[in-house]
Amino acid sequence: MSENPFTSLSRLMHEPNRLAIISALAAAVDGLSFSELKEACCLTDGNLNRHLKALEEEAIIAQHKDTLEGKRPRTTITLTPEGRKRFVKYLATLEEVLAQAAASVGSPSPAGSVPRLRPGQV
Amino acid sequence: MSENPFTSLSRLMHEPNRLAIISALAAAVDGLSFSELKEACCLTDGNLNRHLKALEEEAIIAQHKDTLEGKRPRTTITLTPEGRKRFVKYLATLEEVLAQAAASVGSPSPAGSVPRLRPGQV
Repeated sequence: MSENPFTSLSRLMHEPNRLAIISALAAAVDGLSFSELKEACCLTDGNLNRHLKALEEEAIIAQHKDTLEGKRPRTTITLTPEGRKRFVKYLATLEEVLAQAAASVGSPSPAGSVPRLRPGQV
Repeated sequence: MSENPFTSLSRLMHEPNRLAIISALAAAVDGLSFSELKEACCLTDGNLNRHLKALEEEAIIAQHKDTLEGKRPRTTITLTPEGRKRFVKYLATLEEVLAQAAASVGSPSPAGSVPRLRPGQV
């Protein structure tokens, strides 16, 4: 896909906690509440807030205060269509990186399994 | 392998340029010179030096000034056996992360291809 997949990796999504956040949201069609996401990713309020802010600024995720949970408005966090598109692209690049790295330690990827993901897939 | 592969990813190796450096070294049995590594990873002297220092402190790589290249000693950089072991472990975790993330966007990994890497493999 690219000559140097390593340098093509989206640094916005590459951080392990952000990968966990985006993966959890990608699997939740109706989004997740702040507390559900916090639990899924084993993060503190402060850490999760910091990552969500960075991802929201790039329109990867969206936060909606739309329903009531007890007496407090419930914040629902969703992956945006643009975020999903960029995540699929990131995963395709990560797959290239993994294949190249695995080959470097003498473990070439099995034929036919790479690439599994294409940016236009979803 | 782990309950939460995302948080198990070695942050020391996860940075894209470090991944490129370690992959290049993993593929070079006799090591690489500073300039060869710089070219392979498209890095500046300063950036490469910074990453090498961090990786050397953790005994992932070793630097040897052992041969002459023109009038200057040539620095040969190698991946240590411990570094290779940790890299294989990192890649196995990365593969888990990729499989989980791919499943979250609706692209489960093909059966039989995960895991491809095991820590004890090399």
